[in-house]
Amino acid sequence: MARETDFWLEEYYTRDYCTHICLRVKDIIYRGESKYQTLDVVDTFDWGRVFLLDNVVMTCEKYEFIYHEMISHVLISSHPAPERVLIIGGGDGGAAREILRHKEIKQLDLVEIDGKVVEVSKKYLPDCACSFDDPRMNLVIGDGIEFVKNRKDTYDIILIDSTDPIGPALGLFEEEFYRSIYHSLKDNGFFTFQSESPFYYSEFQKGVIGKLRKIFPVIKPYTATIPMYPGSLWTFTVGSKKFDPVEIRNKKDLSSLGLKYYNYEIHQAAFALPEFAKKIFA
Amino acid sequence: MARETDFWLEEYYTRDYCTHICLRVKDIIYRGESKYQTLDVVDTFDWGRVFLLDNVVMTCEKYEFIYHEMISHVLISSHPAPERVLIIGGGDGGAAREILRHKEIKQLDLVEIDGKVVEVSKKYLPDCACSFDDPRMNLVIGDGIEFVKNRKDTYDIILIDSTDPIGPALGLFEEEFYRSIYHSLKDNGFFTFQSESPFYYSEFQKGVIGKLRKIFPVIKPYTATIPMYPGSLWTFTVGSKKFDPVEIRNKKDLSSLGLKYYNYEIHQAAFALPEFAKKIFA
Repeated sequence: MARETDFWLEEYYTRDYCTHICLRVKDIIYRGESKYQTLDVVDTFDWGRVFLLDNVVMTCEKYEFIYHEMISHVLISSHPAPERVLIIGGGDGGAAREILRHKEIKQLDLVEIDGKVVEVSKKYLPDCACSFDDPRMNLVIGDGIEFVKNRKDTYDIILIDSTDPIGPALGLFEEEFYRSIYHSLKDNGFFTFQSESPFYYSEFQKGVIGKLRKIFPVIKPYTATIPMYPGSLWTFTVGSKKFDPVEIRNKKDLSSLGLKYYNYEIHQAAFALPEFAKKIFA
Repeated sequence: MARETDFWLEEYYTRDYCTHICLRVKDIIYRGESKYQTLDVVDTFDWGRVFLLDNVVMTCEKYEFIYHEMISHVLISSHPAPERVLIIGGGDGGAAREILRHKEIKQLDLVEIDGKVVEVSKKYLPDCACSFDDPRMNLVIGDGIEFVKNRKDTYDIILIDSTDPIGPALGLFEEEFYRSIYHSLKDNGFFTFQSESPFYYSEFQKGVIGKLRKIFPVIKPYTATIPMYPGSLWTFTVGSKKFDPVEIRNKKDLSSLGLKYYNYEIHQAAFALPEFAKKIFA
């Protein structure tokens, strides 16, 4: 974490390898903690404001658009008629902002376990957390795993916008949870989740694919380059009840949406995997 | 650079922003200098052996396959009948290794200004520098800018595998050089060069596109994710005398080539640009 003595922000990604990122820090904006984790917001020269949970970079002003656009718009474009969306996690509001750019979305439920994440984001990351007052937004502070257990046949799209598969987020990568997701989706439904970098998490990725295969008939990973995360080549994995997410079924003019990363060519391109990654997700 | 006192390898990318990379160092393998630059090879836990010129990361064992496959195979696949190739720079041998995987290549000229780069690579990066004994390889230690001045209508493909556009490599990003490249290509010819990250070099990229437009009728950038370079989202730019490089004209079974990144889906996908990058290269 940011140390005021030397002004470097350090993040150890693995214990064995000790790659880490250093950023020159302008200012420490906020330091606090909740029942679940420590929360810090640090202003840096290169990445702008950086939001850390338990000393791990969650998001930053310079690169958040890539993650939030790519977790959101791919499924909105694939679904023939998306109206009701659920986000589990995503308390910084970035994915919600992207989903709510689409007028056809009638209701967005956002279930974040840590109310402090929402509170800190609204105060210190206003560009991300700008959609909590949208009348279509239904914010629930609670456990996403419990939440989906009671929803059957409810959602067109579910996004799991979680932290890494360690500690509190571990249950979001389990077979039982994926089964609840399946049942809470409508027949045309899709879900996606951030599934880490193939440079560092290949064994985890193989395990997750194995769990999904038991439940979803269609499973497709896609990628985006997100320089704020270790390895940068990031994956999202889609589970689908029926449709292939590569195909665009909800085509429209995107030019008024103000997107900085996503477009329809990027949609198609994101599903092309490098050879080494194909082997992981085979 | 690697300091034996603290075993961190530091690379400042810009003076203003001071983002840098830290890697835990196992061992300092080689330190030396040539007429042109300092050369260092450092063994690290996460990236394997890292080769630095003037304290900037040129390549590393973990990620070199991405850069070398993507600078090489895209044009080999686009060209209807590639036989004669020129590499300017590329003294580590990685791009040459990739080009020479293709049996249809009859001659490869590699013009590297600094003989010491070849020498150090052969000794300390044998996985990269493994093709210098191939009978099709013609190694020239000399100035690439001078070399292409005297070649007319000679090459099917030219790759500029250079360092950043500062210091000795600056001439490789100038209009006069691009004009020489144009004339040394055959009528079906293509060239490509590494054109930096849009996160850090957008002004440079706009300038280069402006120069190329005066000379080449077809100009197309493509991307690859290369985590060893700052920003990770890396671009290569193609100048073509006739053909669109997106299209694959030299299709064949790639499975015996041992590739780890490139495939035909990646070829097509690489030409899709994120919205913000489209604006830079427009």
